[in-house]
Order: sequence, then C-alpha cells, then structure tokens
Amino acid sequence: MTDAIETIRIMGEAARVAARQLALAPTLLKATAVRGAAAAVRANAATILAANAEDMAAAGGLGAAMLDRLLLTPARVEAMAAGLDTVAGLADPVGQLINEWQQPNGLRFERVRVPLGVIGIIYESRPNVTADAGALCLMAGNACILRGGSEAARSNRSIHAALVEGVVAAGLPATAIQLVGDLDRALVGAMLTAAGLIDIIVPRGGKGLVARVQAEARVPVLAHLDGLNHIYVDKAADPAKALAIVINSKLRRTGVCGAMETLLIDRAYPAAAELVTALQAAGCDVRGDGRIVALTGIPAVEAADWDTEWLDARASVALVDGVDAALAHIEAHGSHHTDAIVTEDDAIAARFLSEVDSAIVLHNASTQFADGGEFGFGAEIGISTGRLHARGPVALEGLTTYKYRVYGDGQVRA
Amino acid sequence: MTDAIETIRIMGEAARVAARQLALAPTLLKATAVRGAAAAVRANAATILAANAEDMAAAGGLGAAMLDRLLLTPARVEAMAAGLDTVAGLADPVGQLINEWQQPNGLRFERVRVPLGVIGIIYESRPNVTADAGALCLMAGNACILRGGSEAARSNRSIHAALVEGVVAAGLPATAIQLVGDLDRALVGAMLTAAGLIDIIVPRGGKGLVARVQAEARVPVLAHLDGLNHIYVDKAADPAKALAIVINSKLRRTGVCGAMETLLIDRAYPAAAELVTALQAAGCDVRGDGRIVALTGIPAVEAADWDTEWLDARASVALVDGVDAALAHIEAHGSHHTDAIVTEDDAIAARFLSEVDSAIVLHNASTQFADGGEFGFGAEIGISTGRLHARGPVALEGLTTYKYRVYGDGQVRA
Repeated sequence: MTDAIETIRIMGEAARVAARQLALAPTLLKATAVRGAAAAVRANAATILAANAEDMAAAGGLGAAMLDRLLLTPARVEAMAAGLDTVAGLADPVGQLINEWQQPNGLRFERVRVPLGVIGIIYESRPNVTADAGALCLMAGNACILRGGSEAARSNRSIHAALVEGVVAAGLPATAIQLVGDLDRALVGAMLTAAGLIDIIVPRGGKGLVARVQAEARVPVLAHLDGLNHIYVDKAADPAKALAIVINSKLRRTGVCGAMETLLIDRAYPAAAELVTALQAAGCDVRGDGRIVALTGIPAVEAADWDTEWLDARASVALVDGVDAALAHIEAHGSHHTDAIVTEDDAIAARFLSEVDSAIVLHNASTQFADGGEFGFGAEIGISTGRLHARGPVALEGLTTYKYRVYGDGQVRA
Repeated sequence: MTDAIETIRIMGEAARVAARQLALAPTLLKATAVRGAAAAVRANAATILAANAEDMAAAGGLGAAMLDRLLLTPARVEAMAAGLDTVAGLADPVGQLINEWQQPNGLRFERVRVPLGVIGIIYESRPNVTADAGALCLMAGNACILRGGSEAARSNRSIHAALVEGVVAAGLPATAIQLVGDLDRALVGAMLTAAGLIDIIVPRGGKGLVARVQAEARVPVLAHLDGLNHIYVDKAADPAKALAIVINSKLRRTGVCGAMETLLIDRAYPAAAELVTALQAAGCDVRGDGRIVALTGIPAVEAADWDTEWLDARASVALVDGVDAALAHIEAHGSHHTDAIVTEDDAIAARFLSEVDSAIVLHNASTQFADGGEFGFGAEIGISTGRLHARGPVALEGLTTYKYRVYGDGQVRA
C-alpha cells in the first residue's frame, strides 16, 4: 500500500503542475491537443486494434456482454476519434463570466468559471473511456489520472499513447493525461484517498465498482447510482404517445440508466390494458400489481420488484389513483434519476415536473433521452445521481468550479 | 452508537418529509416563517437571555474568547432577530431558471434551481448560529438538523423553540428545523454517516471540529479550512493604497478567515521599509525573510511561518522578485482562500487575478472583504474552501441544486 500511495503521490504532483498550465491554456490550444489526439488515434489504429486483440485473447473468462464492451473494431476506433473531434469543438466553459455586480462601496465582483484541477477516473472494460474521459477533462482545463480495468490494460495503454501524442504536439505537458499503468489494485485505494492531490473521482462502471469507490473515497465522488425510472401515464394521456414513449423508454436499450423500470397507469386512463399488452407484445416481461393482474392476466409483481432496477426487458406495472398516488409511489421507490409523465393536461404535467424530485423530469418524452448527447452537451463524463455540485448529465461545465474576482480602488473594510 | 443512529434516523426521516413540503413552499410562506421566528426571538428575549445565563454559569472552564462567543446580551439577541428579518428578505433561489434551450428534435430543456434537501449543521459555542443557519436553510427550501455545542445547549434550545414558533405559525412543519437535544457525542457520528437522510453537512467552528467532520463524514461536507491569505504589493502599487489595504487586511480583525497572514513585497517597490514599519507601528508582530531583515531590522521568520495561519496580530513578510515570484510563493504556501494584489498596473493585476488559484482574488481591496455580507449575499452559511459544489462565501444559492425539466410532444429516442 505504501508503494501505491507513493506512486499516486508522484503522479498527483505531476498532475497538479500540469493542471496549473492547463488552467491557463487558451481554448485553441486545448482543442488543438484534442484534435491531435484524434489524428493520433486514427494514425495508430492498427496498433490499438492489435493491443485490443491481445486483451480479447486474454479475456477468456469474461461474459459475452463484458467481451462486447471490451472489443474494439475499426469502426469503433473511428468512432472514438470522431468523439475526440466532437469534444475539441465544444464550447469552452473556462473563463466564462457567470455573473457580475457592483456593491455600493464601488467594489466590482465577477464570478468566473475555472477548472476543477485534477480529476481521477476509475473505470472498467470499455477502452473508449480512456479517450472520452481524457479529452473531456483536458477541454475543461483539468489534468486527469486514469485507471482502467486490467482486462483492457493493453488497449488503454495504446489509446493513452495516442492521446499523449496529441497533447505533446500541441505543446501541453504529457502529464496532462496520465494512465495508471500498474495493475496493483492498491493503486485504486491510493487514488480514493489522495485528498489534496486529486480533486474529484469519477467512477465509470458497474454497481460493484461505484459502491467500492463511494465506500472508500476520501476525495469527493461524482457518481452514478441507480436509475429506477418511472413513467406515469395520466388519464389525459394521448394513447399513441403513451404507447410510443413507454415502449421506447423500456425497450430501445434496456441496459442504459435512462431506461424505464416501472410503469404507473392512472386508473382512469381508458387504454391501460392495451398499453400493458403492447409492451408485452414488444418483448418485455411485464408483471403487474393486483389491479393490473385482474385487468390483463399478466403475472404478479413481488414487493421487491418496485425497488428493482432491471436493466433488462422486464417491467413492473401498477394501476394508481391519479397523479397523487403516482407521486407517492415515485417518492417511495424512485432513485431520483429520471421520471416522465405522459398527459395532455398541462396543469397535471406541471405538478409532476415540479413535485418529482429527480435530476431529470420529462413531459411527453422518452426517459431514454437521459443522456448528455441528447441534452445537446456534445458528450458526457457521466450522469450524476448525487445532489451536490452537478446533477444529471455532466459534461464540460460539471468539470469546472468558479472563483470570485474583486476589483477595487483602495477599498478597506470598515 | 445504535441508539444514536436510531435517533438520527427518526429525525432524518421527519426532515425528509418536511423537506418535500419546504421544496414546494412559495417564497412568501418561507419569509413569513422566518419573520415569525424573528418576532418570536424578540418576544422570548428574556427566556433566551435566562437560558444563556445558565449556560454561562456552567461554562466556568472555558477561555475568555470562548465565553465571549457564548455570551448573549439584549443587543446580541436583537441582532439575531434583525439577522432573521434580513434572511426573510433575501431573493429566493428556488425555482430560478438557470438556463433553457431547445434541441432540433423539438425537446425543450429547462434547468431550474431546487433545494438540496436536508442539511446537517454541526457547530460550536455561538448560539446565534442556531438562528442564522436554521433560517438560511429554510429560506432555500431545505429542512435542517442542527447540532450545537454542549456549552450552549440551553441557549440553543430556547432559540430553537422561537424558530419553531415562527415556522409553525406560518403553517410549515415543526420538523423543518430540528435541534439534536441529546448531548451524546455519538449523535455527531451518526449525523456524519447518515447518507440518504442528510444530503450535506456544514461544520461551523474551530479547526478541531472541522477536521473531525471531514475525517468521519460519509455525507458530503461543505467546509471551511485554512485562510492563509497573501497580499502582493507590486512595484507599481500606490503607496497610500498599499498601506491602508495591508493594515486593514491584517489588523481590522485578526481572527477572521479573511485576514492577511503573509505580505509579499515586490523588490522594486520603493516604499517597502515604510510599509513594514507602519504595519509594525499599527501593532502587528512582523517577521521578515532575509532581505526584509536586512532592510528593516525586524526579527526573522522561521521556515514554518510561511505555512502558518496566525489568526492573530502577526504577519510574515518577504521581498520577492516581481509577480512571478509572488505567484510561485502563493502556489507553494497559500490555502486557495483569498489573495490580493495592490498595483496600478492593470496588466499585472489581470495576471495575478487569473493565475492565483483562490476562491477570492482581489485587486486593490482589503482581503477582509472575504465575507458573504460584503459580497452582497445578505448572509452566509460559511466560506467554502473546497472546490466542489460551492466555493467562497456561501449563502442561499449554495444551499440549492438543480433539476432538468424536459418538455416534449411525444418524442422517442432513435
């Protein structure tokens, strides 16, 4: 453990020095570095694919889903490079004037965005996180320390080398984006306790990883926990919209955090049975509460189902007594991630959007829009389920903080 | 410890219920509650003063500074009530539209401010924190759980009773502001680990308290650490401004976090000796680096002095080679709280304000302006030295988060 702490101390101090340079780097320089990284990824595609083939060959014990996440193809490498080009084109939050005002004593105040500093990213399997996360941190003026999974070690090293090529070619320090090469798990623990060296940790991976990070971290964590998302279909819902939104929210991709897990249908909605049957016909294993079972004959839920994030083609459905009952159910069982209402009644929609305490609340739209790209952020480092600092999809702005600049003419305090 | 956890669980769950009501309470209702609390403090002044007299009588072992912080007088009770009236008049951040935009698919996005939820305040000696913190949390739509020091237990209980009187008279739940009445120290530990019940902990007190909170907390902490603040007097400084600003920054009040601790004087500044001598003549124990000692004959600093927050009438002074050396010194020894430059050269000032990585950077003004009231915030819950969520003086806005409202017309994701 002492060696691990020393390794992270050395990397952290190098990162802090790089962060000072990055904080002052103009947008064009950062964009040039990220575009250079994209070019280097393309130029080194063969090397990256060869490294990935070695990782795949060594990854015999992994399941099919994990192997698919690990796999790189020429198309995926190109998508990674294109993603870097996108990040290079994003609006730079650093230096943005958030607000300004003057006090009666003549002091003038400015609140301006500045980078967070040094960001630690701890992630699993998907090698493209190396490129995404590194570029997002850099564009927001931060240095980062990346720690990928051992199963992707060779892929991550080759991608990291391409990033550094772009960074160095732009005249920025190679230590702007560092990869923890050593696979010793103690290094993760050392990152999690590196207060003063690392300003924030972003875990990206399964619940096991996120839980470990949250349990052990002494550094603030920007994390994504459950997405136990609801759709409430109100009595005044348009049936065609309800059908399209429910099926898309549940089945477009079942493994994403924005997927619907529980469907709440107003008792007064006339097409409840049709909606449940259509969801079933679309390939979803649907279970209902007593009233839904009586109405449709589908299997019954168990009590724990209301608190279960399936991340699969399965959903729980309840018939509820209007919006009040829906709000109470969501408060009792929701995870404050993403919830939607389908209704043509704007007053009911306004109540739902105001009273549901979730990062994202939608009216007449699919919960699968819970994504930084769909929000127009151009990219995302993750979706925060915490309430502090950043909530919901997090892109460049979430990787910044602010400072106050105060302009006087000799003022002293009375 | 189990009893403590159970006590905090019960209080936390009551707070969560109250928080839901407060989150939806209109500004007028919250302001009425806080004005009612002010009226109740005034009406119960005799009771509060009697309770405080008992605390003072029992506080024999405390030092003079601690006793002064504990003491309430009729004027201090009136100031507390006036402070509540001020908070009741602050602009309500809840519901504020931070930004809005539309995507090409027609989805309309709104980012709006919402309360954080449940805030835990852990504090020492000053009984007025009970009123200040309770009112600020409530005006920002949050429930709070207050844990004051045992030395102020009777004072805190009587002030809390007055707050609840105002809250209940306005029709808001009594559990909006709860006071941990039991003096068992395990309750502090239970608050610090009450993730899911308490959203953020704000410690207010000495370094010992803050350090304990930061070490033990599993809930996010909004904390104030060191204020090791610098003033750099540039060669182009106006000597009259430099003198007034340095003396005010160091000596107006020496125990506040915004006080200057280290003075850096440009080697090319012509009136360095006069400045040091004047600071000394104003009653400050000034110690210098080798060049200052040679110039003025004052005692020499020890190496550790550059890293010491005196919070007293003492300062360390160095002669530096221009703004670059000042920046390097501040980066090496500063605490990222508040730093100032005195100069008539706007280009040098701009560099300093941009390159010093502190929450507050000032040009030609006293560091003692590091205060929410002086910023025009009307009040402050504290000054955050962290980089996440809120930085610098924190008032109502820092006690909020945001949510995204998304308006569609049946959109599904491709």
